[in-house]
Amino acid sequence: MTAVDGVQRTLQVALGERSYPIHIGTGLLGKAELLTPYLAGQQVMVVTNEAIAPLYLDKLCATLPDHLEVRTLVLPDGEQYKSIEQVSRIWDALLEAGFNRRCTLVALGGGVIGDMVGYAAAAYQRGVAFIQVPTTLLSQVDSSVGGKTGVNHPLGKNMIGAFWQPKAVLVDIDTLTTLPARELSAGLAEVIKYGLIRDTAFLDWLEVHMSALLAVAPDVIADAIAQSCQIKADIVAEDETEQGVRALLNLGHTFGHAIEAHQGYGNWLHGEAVGAGMAMAATLSQALGWISTADQARSLALIESANLPTHAPANMTSDDFLARMRLDKKNIDARLRLVLLESLGNACVSDAVPASQLKNLIDCYPRR
Amino acid sequence: MTAVDGVQRTLQVALGERSYPIHIGTGLLGKAELLTPYLAGQQVMVVTNEAIAPLYLDKLCATLPDHLEVRTLVLPDGEQYKSIEQVSRIWDALLEAGFNRRCTLVALGGGVIGDMVGYAAAAYQRGVAFIQVPTTLLSQVDSSVGGKTGVNHPLGKNMIGAFWQPKAVLVDIDTLTTLPARELSAGLAEVIKYGLIRDTAFLDWLEVHMSALLAVAPDVIADAIAQSCQIKADIVAEDETEQGVRALLNLGHTFGHAIEAHQGYGNWLHGEAVGAGMAMAATLSQALGWISTADQARSLALIESANLPTHAPANMTSDDFLARMRLDKKNIDARLRLVLLESLGNACVSDAVPASQLKNLIDCYPRR
Repeated sequence: MTAVDGVQRTLQVALGERSYPIHIGTGLLGKAELLTPYLAGQQVMVVTNEAIAPLYLDKLCATLPDHLEVRTLVLPDGEQYKSIEQVSRIWDALLEAGFNRRCTLVALGGGVIGDMVGYAAAAYQRGVAFIQVPTTLLSQVDSSVGGKTGVNHPLGKNMIGAFWQPKAVLVDIDTLTTLPARELSAGLAEVIKYGLIRDTAFLDWLEVHMSALLAVAPDVIADAIAQSCQIKADIVAEDETEQGVRALLNLGHTFGHAIEAHQGYGNWLHGEAVGAGMAMAATLSQALGWISTADQARSLALIESANLPTHAPANMTSDDFLARMRLDKKNIDARLRLVLLESLGNACVSDAVPASQLKNLIDCYPRR
Repeated sequence: MTAVDGVQRTLQVALGERSYPIHIGTGLLGKAELLTPYLAGQQVMVVTNEAIAPLYLDKLCATLPDHLEVRTLVLPDGEQYKSIEQVSRIWDALLEAGFNRRCTLVALGGGVIGDMVGYAAAAYQRGVAFIQVPTTLLSQVDSSVGGKTGVNHPLGKNMIGAFWQPKAVLVDIDTLTTLPARELSAGLAEVIKYGLIRDTAFLDWLEVHMSALLAVAPDVIADAIAQSCQIKADIVAEDETEQGVRALLNLGHTFGHAIEAHQGYGNWLHGEAVGAGMAMAATLSQALGWISTADQARSLALIESANLPTHAPANMTSDDFLARMRLDKKNIDARLRLVLLESLGNACVSDAVPASQLKNLIDCYPRR
């Protein structure tokens, strides 16, 4: 589906003077020529978490040329640490090291590290360079593309942040060999999302290759990542700051963010909540008569084949959902806006669903 | 020097799609037609401090149409509160009120309030609208123009922030009638700066009108504000993100920031530290043979005529200065960069001064 150049593929995110490459392949962590062209100056800080540091930090640092001033910072692991307090630790470390505005931050880890380091870079001295080295499937196909950075607030996910583009993204698929199965599935939720919102051929392909994806077959996973990044890059190039089409990338996320926030960040993985959220969005789209019962069933079957939940949490009422969903960033003034499926492979943003109908659907939705 | 339209003048900051007007005049706080066109939606939060709230908060809120959802937040007053913790209080209030990304923040107060509210707006849901209503001379001529927002860190001033432009700036010069004399002088430091870096005719004018400025004569102060904003707006339009000429606006600020940080924020007012810093920069420029002894003396006399210090703090060594100055955002890698005077009315950025010469000058500089 995409051209294969040995073990390495390169996409370009087209954003004018903020354009950047995404390199996907095996063994990329050891390739200095993919990192050093994107460093702004001599000062480099690699930020990672406690789970990733023992696996990949030394390898990445060994790849950086000796003449650079390299510092490292290891943060705790988990969505519950995606907070302004942890970002402040990055700022403290940068200032204690005397790093200036030509320094470069390198985010080595999953989406939490990428979002926090990106935001730390956006705000440090009003903006410094950063490079994404995502190590989870979810961050490889989603959060490392498009420049959304930020942290959670106790009252809402990703409520504080900035649009800030990386100078480059390095996706080393070797890192997936150490990824827990549950996190692999969570990443597949976003992969499935791209098919549902924009690409029925990709949906067909995913149905055929799901077992190979779950087994992390290198060629297949590289194809899935490249196709996902391409779809996201195309959408981001069209609409960098989410005035329009970019909102479609939030399929399943309005329900999903409500689940995550209610259950406590880290108890449901982001991708698991998105899986359930996409199932709820597909079910609502069918209830509105937009997609057929067969297409709704096909969507849920694909989500389940990736070992993702399609049910809502047992302890979450429709009011719990609606209270959280009212805080969603897509809303304009008092109206709830949802991403729904007009047909498989074709999503839209709608504020046409009355709150009463939405409440009714959530009340009837399967719990576990 | 600028066209007068009754009691009101309007400048435009030319930044393409981010262009915005600066309205300067008397009675502007009561003019709804200058505020409402710039509101993004129905939700408005006015943020001010404890000193300004009793004076102007009710008046501003009464100007906003009844159909809007208006909230207010009052923060403590002072540079020592320009912190990420206070910005977090703004984010907390926005989320508790359920404000979405079409809300508008209004910054009513001096530079501390303007910088914090601007930064809160830049990061809330990755960016919402804000309006500046500066109430000190310093914020009217400086911090409300140009989109620099941010907070201090214990290790450096304005180290965390964003470039984020307001939708409009309302300068009501009536607010200067309640401004303490010391803060009026602090604002005049930035006014003098514009003359020193860019406009000898303005320097001549300031020497003639200094007593009228200190007496807050309305026409004279309005002229000074308009000319200052115009010079700053021209420079910002040339160089929004400080890649070049905008750095000249930092005349006196590298020394000044070092003084503020060493003395503890709030003990020396920002403008006082800039006054002393400009005197040091002029003295260094003379020592380098760039400006004459007469021009150095003229610069210091103008600064002193505004009741500003030209001495350095008695308890601050050259090492204290240099340690803080090394953290300055203008530095590139290890080189100290300073804004100096090539001639009166013509500043430049230089990294040509050896650290030893700089240390020697600071050692010999008058203390009090």
